[in-house]
Amino acid sequence: MPTQWYNLRADMKELPDPMLNPGTLQPIRTEELYPIFCEELARQETDGKTAYFDIPEPILDIYKMYRPSPLCRAYHLERYLGTPAKIYFKYEGNNTSGSHKLNSAVAQAYYAKKQGLTGLTTETGAGQWGTALAEACAYFGMDLTVFMVKASFEQKPYRKAVMKTFGANVIASPSGTTKVGAAILAENPDTTGSLGCAISEAIEKAVTTPGCRYVLGSVLNQVLLHQSVIGLESYKAMEILGEYPDTIIGCAGGGSNLGGLIAPFMRDRILGKANPHFIAVEPASCPSMTRGRYAYDFCDTGKVTPLARMYTLGSGFIPSPNHAGGLRYHGMSPIISKLYHDGYLDEARSVEQTKVFDAATLFAKLETILPAPESAHAIRVAIDEALRCRETGEAKTILFGLTGTGYFDMAAYTAYQEKTMTDYIPTDGDLKPGFDSLPKIPGIQE
Amino acid sequence: MPTQWYNLRADMKELPDPMLNPGTLQPIRTEELYPIFCEELARQETDGKTAYFDIPEPILDIYKMYRPSPLCRAYHLERYLGTPAKIYFKYEGNNTSGSHKLNSAVAQAYYAKKQGLTGLTTETGAGQWGTALAEACAYFGMDLTVFMVKASFEQKPYRKAVMKTFGANVIASPSGTTKVGAAILAENPDTTGSLGCAISEAIEKAVTTPGCRYVLGSVLNQVLLHQSVIGLESYKAMEILGEYPDTIIGCAGGGSNLGGLIAPFMRDRILGKANPHFIAVEPASCPSMTRGRYAYDFCDTGKVTPLARMYTLGSGFIPSPNHAGGLRYHGMSPIISKLYHDGYLDEARSVEQTKVFDAATLFAKLETILPAPESAHAIRVAIDEALRCRETGEAKTILFGLTGTGYFDMAAYTAYQEKTMTDYIPTDGDLKPGFDSLPKIPGIQE
Repeated sequence: MPTQWYNLRADMKELPDPMLNPGTLQPIRTEELYPIFCEELARQETDGKTAYFDIPEPILDIYKMYRPSPLCRAYHLERYLGTPAKIYFKYEGNNTSGSHKLNSAVAQAYYAKKQGLTGLTTETGAGQWGTALAEACAYFGMDLTVFMVKASFEQKPYRKAVMKTFGANVIASPSGTTKVGAAILAENPDTTGSLGCAISEAIEKAVTTPGCRYVLGSVLNQVLLHQSVIGLESYKAMEILGEYPDTIIGCAGGGSNLGGLIAPFMRDRILGKANPHFIAVEPASCPSMTRGRYAYDFCDTGKVTPLARMYTLGSGFIPSPNHAGGLRYHGMSPIISKLYHDGYLDEARSVEQTKVFDAATLFAKLETILPAPESAHAIRVAIDEALRCRETGEAKTILFGLTGTGYFDMAAYTAYQEKTMTDYIPTDGDLKPGFDSLPKIPGIQE
Repeated sequence: MPTQWYNLRADMKELPDPMLNPGTLQPIRTEELYPIFCEELARQETDGKTAYFDIPEPILDIYKMYRPSPLCRAYHLERYLGTPAKIYFKYEGNNTSGSHKLNSAVAQAYYAKKQGLTGLTTETGAGQWGTALAEACAYFGMDLTVFMVKASFEQKPYRKAVMKTFGANVIASPSGTTKVGAAILAENPDTTGSLGCAISEAIEKAVTTPGCRYVLGSVLNQVLLHQSVIGLESYKAMEILGEYPDTIIGCAGGGSNLGGLIAPFMRDRILGKANPHFIAVEPASCPSMTRGRYAYDFCDTGKVTPLARMYTLGSGFIPSPNHAGGLRYHGMSPIISKLYHDGYLDEARSVEQTKVFDAATLFAKLETILPAPESAHAIRVAIDEALRCRETGEAKTILFGLTGTGYFDMAAYTAYQEKTMTDYIPTDGDLKPGFDSLPKIPGIQE
């Protein structure tokens, strides 16, 4: 098990563009982040130089309860597909929160506690991040308020009950409990919410509550740093097996799992040591990489965050209700965005929901793991790649990230089984309001 | 990890009374079980002599994916309670089915496949057994029909979706699809079902379908045999830690978890090597050990099974809807019953539902595992015992079985949180019809 996190930025030829203060339009200084993030996390966020960060002992103690997570080979799936490819997956559903989100949740809760803070706020989409953070906060004795995207709140009432069991206060977003939420509701009363809205509300609540800070489960550099444990373990396990992946596949909502999984392999690519093919998979309903723009944008709908340069559909984009709630985000991690823009991350692919559930169901039957819909996006493409190998006869080694279990997504599975699930692909017209919402920044983007 | 299962019967001073053929009232012969069970399982069922059974390689291959399961110490809980006691728990929720039921499911599916059978039928209460067996059948490529207790079917629609995802056919019981189910419905149209009803239906379906047999997730000797892996691993882990439990606590519905957990410790007790205190915990709403009779009874409501001598509320007892669906059974494993009757199993304790959820919620917050309601019965008593140690100052070592996670029980947790959960304790009058249904057997019980 790794005792350090790996910071890919330290090895990137060019760093992602810096976050900008939305008032001054100048690169944001670490100290300017202190009102939002606790200090150590603010430092991790802005540190593009330090390659390795020691994982503090209390965090390692928790990691030891469920890490290293298994690297599995999908023998049954390979046999069923009749592919010469080897399919490996890194299984992050084996902890009590059920997803990879716990890796960063324990880190963020720990640093906040260490700083003497008493409460945290956050947003959650599918509820995986909220569940993981609720567990971490229960463990460290921190108060937690979770703004849950309304679409998920309604699709997944039991997620709410889980977070409440762990002691969290859970609010459907947009809510009337914040000014920014009330404003979003006034403009669009029927909205089913988005991660962007929920982030705005969580930040407002954090900065207006004494002893409280905001934490985020994806997108940020610090989160990708913590999630590097996924990649580091995968790398080590592959080494022990005498393997090296030809193709690495991850689902991408905000980029936390993908960024963590690929980190050490991307290092090889950047340093010219190896040349694996990287594929990011996103839902066709929320196609930030495949149809978004590489631009400075707000991370939230309420436009209270710093500006980040990333692939984005515009902070004004409100995604349609999609069962993969964890992928309903208008933007993409600046690190992932930069790698994609510069050609290191080879490919982004968008997939339709029913095809994702075809893959999820097949995988469940064959490998006895019922995947989260988010994870099933990666499974879909892993299967497609393995089938392509069957055509070409190539015995490629495929690695994908299986981020979590789908036991709270049974409403979606039921819709799929009952054939009431539909595929939604936004038209260019649907995307236009989002792009129109992109900020104009004199001299940078007009 | 053990490579053999342990058969406690081989060391018992007196064997449990034999099952009787309900027609002849003679002890049932192994071959008479072949129409219901596959042959190897029928042999395991009736073998009271062989102490150890080799676990076949293909079963070990699956066990290796999730076993040995963790033996954890509940440090946070101990500290919170201020108890001098050490609280250990064996955590069986760390596999993809979420409960200990997988241990027997893979064994039963394997032996059926090996015999060349093509399908299985079973019943499920909470859905844990059905989920585990659906996974095992998907793995081995067997058809599966699950009769799910109607109360659980309605409380847990998503359990159904999970089993369907794994390819199972799931039917609410009592159903109109079997003669016995139709008869039960005709007599009691509003019944919410019971494990006893579901067993009758599953057996009828098995014996009327070519290539099909019936499997059961608890009660039977074969199931306790397979579940002995829980106890064997616990025993070994305790040994490595230099510990030995003073008190061993398990929830008891049909007895599968309790029987598996205590097996090697009970061996010590029987052989005079150690003297741990054993406690079986059952819901106050379905008190087969604390208020039942030790008698020959049918294992099902439809009275089609062999007669087993056990603690029972009578096969005619239909339990009230109770959220711990896995504990809604009128009888108790004959092995557990015999041990209890002869004083080896020291104590049975019944607990009320809201107190169980108090314990579950406290445990979730402190130990970051959200327990199944069934498991929380054991947690309740472990907490009570630890609190007693606080009074007496005794530094006892407590071991309890944490059989699975409660992620499919969030309707119950929600009811608890919203204070709409009620406690039900049957009156003596409520129990009377069940006792009146006990069979009369000339010369044995009148």
